[in-house]
Amino acid sequence: MSKKNLLVGQSGGPTAVINSSLYGVVSGGLNHPEINKVYGMRNGVEGFLEGRYFDFEKEMALEDIEKLKTTPGAFLGSCRFKLPESIEDNMFATLFEKFEALEIGYVVYIGGNDSMDTVSKLSRYATKVDSEIKIMGVPKTVDNDLVRTDHTPGFGSAAKYVATTVREITMDANVYETKSVTIVEIMGRHAGWLTAASVLARKFVGDNPLLIYLPEVTFEKTKFLLQIEKALEKNTTVIVCISEGIKDEEGTFICEYVTDVRTDSFGHKILTGAGKYLENLVRDQLGAKVRSVELNVNQRCSATLMSATDQKEAAGAGGFAVESMLQGETGKMVSFVRRDDLGYKITYGLEDVNLICNQEKEMPLEWITAEGSDISEDFLTYVKPLVAGNVEIPYDEDGLPCFVYRK
Amino acid sequence: MSKKNLLVGQSGGPTAVINSSLYGVVSGGLNHPEINKVYGMRNGVEGFLEGRYFDFEKEMALEDIEKLKTTPGAFLGSCRFKLPESIEDNMFATLFEKFEALEIGYVVYIGGNDSMDTVSKLSRYATKVDSEIKIMGVPKTVDNDLVRTDHTPGFGSAAKYVATTVREITMDANVYETKSVTIVEIMGRHAGWLTAASVLARKFVGDNPLLIYLPEVTFEKTKFLLQIEKALEKNTTVIVCISEGIKDEEGTFICEYVTDVRTDSFGHKILTGAGKYLENLVRDQLGAKVRSVELNVNQRCSATLMSATDQKEAAGAGGFAVESMLQGETGKMVSFVRRDDLGYKITYGLEDVNLICNQEKEMPLEWITAEGSDISEDFLTYVKPLVAGNVEIPYDEDGLPCFVYRK
Repeated sequence: MSKKNLLVGQSGGPTAVINSSLYGVVSGGLNHPEINKVYGMRNGVEGFLEGRYFDFEKEMALEDIEKLKTTPGAFLGSCRFKLPESIEDNMFATLFEKFEALEIGYVVYIGGNDSMDTVSKLSRYATKVDSEIKIMGVPKTVDNDLVRTDHTPGFGSAAKYVATTVREITMDANVYETKSVTIVEIMGRHAGWLTAASVLARKFVGDNPLLIYLPEVTFEKTKFLLQIEKALEKNTTVIVCISEGIKDEEGTFICEYVTDVRTDSFGHKILTGAGKYLENLVRDQLGAKVRSVELNVNQRCSATLMSATDQKEAAGAGGFAVESMLQGETGKMVSFVRRDDLGYKITYGLEDVNLICNQEKEMPLEWITAEGSDISEDFLTYVKPLVAGNVEIPYDEDGLPCFVYRK
Repeated sequence: MSKKNLLVGQSGGPTAVINSSLYGVVSGGLNHPEINKVYGMRNGVEGFLEGRYFDFEKEMALEDIEKLKTTPGAFLGSCRFKLPESIEDNMFATLFEKFEALEIGYVVYIGGNDSMDTVSKLSRYATKVDSEIKIMGVPKTVDNDLVRTDHTPGFGSAAKYVATTVREITMDANVYETKSVTIVEIMGRHAGWLTAASVLARKFVGDNPLLIYLPEVTFEKTKFLLQIEKALEKNTTVIVCISEGIKDEEGTFICEYVTDVRTDSFGHKILTGAGKYLENLVRDQLGAKVRSVELNVNQRCSATLMSATDQKEAAGAGGFAVESMLQGETGKMVSFVRRDDLGYKITYGLEDVNLICNQEKEMPLEWITAEGSDISEDFLTYVKPLVAGNVEIPYDEDGLPCFVYRK
């Protein structure tokens, strides 16, 4: 059997370490004697369908491949493209013809829920047509909401960004002696993992953030206002962290009270503005000095606050995907299995991608305490190792981070 | 003459390095044989009037004093308090009685325009009553709008935060192939220095940010939309940086239009910034995919993106203030004089604080190019040395920055 080529793509929203996973796949592929060339899809399957791809060895210096580990965003470009529901659709035949034309033996797709849907469909089509092409998923999402894995690459760095930034916002808010409320809005459409990580900002019992609200618990405006009022009685500075996806008893997103709701190509509601809405509510109802801060895209694209653990694991998952395909595995997603009987340790596993795609893992309710406004010690034990360690980012002559760019 | 004590206060909005200036003052004071104790006003003159102050030697370990250099916010607490206009007011007598009671010989006040107003009034009162107490100002503001100084401590770190973050936002926006506009709102009510620093994010000619709007130039909506339309013709990703303080031909702040546009379901006015307003304008008028990001308080409180040059100069200015008072100077502000005939070099100077307070330095109009939507090379030459160098921040066992707190 002649040596085959490897094809890798990135899909969905970027993270600080999705390029570390790409590094793991590319270096694994280039170093492996059974793999010939390593190609990258430009803008995922969508760009690849248009004939756009990238030859790593030909178009990229080795030192630039190294720099992928400290470059945020998605180096290959991303897409939000859903393959047809039926694998009878012609698009699958077209894709596999293109795979064959490039002598692809291995396909790795790095992404979240929706990207695992792509891995599922491609691998089911491969089975159907008896193709020998192996298809493997590498997880990625700051939301940490993939099932059947302890956690997801991208989450640790985003959690470190959130915790650091909330700690800095607290330092900023503490300077005045006027009582004030700061509402920090954090990403998380349906799962509160990232917002929960704000609890790491706390340095001592009773420190900020004093109140934390996740989408897993119904958001009640009256209770929220009472909890803030109570917090203001005892504290000068009240920092409140909320998920963008908090919903009230009618299942209405809080942000929907402000924003005209738009939807993305997967039909997901695009959410902004819960923080701004609650800022106005607190001002009107309590007359308190209040501001809101939306952490926005920097939660997922800040390289300077990357977690060393997250980066290492993201790259490791990419390499493990390549190894697994060479051992004959297909239709799987790399998972993280935690062994913490003797300190924190992760081993990589493989899970059937069909059991992962289009599922969401929420925060366990027992980790949410204080009538839905605080986070338990168990979550702290869970999250601390994930944000550990700092990564040295290369800086250019101007003192700004030096990233690698597609040509 | 018996040895006198030194009193230091912080005032106005915090920055990443206002505590570096505090470090410079405190270590200068503690190390000087002619100075006995070093006291800190809590929450500026406002807190000091209430009898609240802090004895550094007694209440703070030396290693914690060192940590001030990497702690954002205002360690002593801040205030926004204007002393009475007339120095005949009783409040001045009260203040000076409190100074005398603590055997204060030297007062340093670290802050911006308004804080220099306090220095001016205190030193004029000292002259009037023939007091020997020396009063000195140390500059601080992320806005860089103080006159008679090349630049201001706090600006370099904020500029580094803005440039780094805009570069990361560009990485994030670049992942999709759909044309999109991202509007980044940056601090600066009347002066555009900080927004101008976003130009540092550009890596090559034609890179983002493509459009930059400062308050120094009248903002015209029609021209703005045309410039965006033109940028979208040639580019997939368009990053636009705007100052929060941009105003139209009638002198109305753009952010003031927001309240007219949006009310929530209870009829409350929704207060948001200029970025959100322009986001909606671009969506409505051009139908383009658009989002806005407000950089918010992290511009001034991020320790992890501190500029080494800024930190060093901030501490140096604090030390210089102490030295100058011991040489008999009073009623002055420490200024920065640039000597760049042989590379970048700063020497400290002294300027009459009466010529500084309540003045604002805007960006020179000749540094604003491309019909008010770009920044010149001259500004780049000016700003590059100010963001240079990175500072190693101490991290705690959880991998988060380790700051020092008031007890």
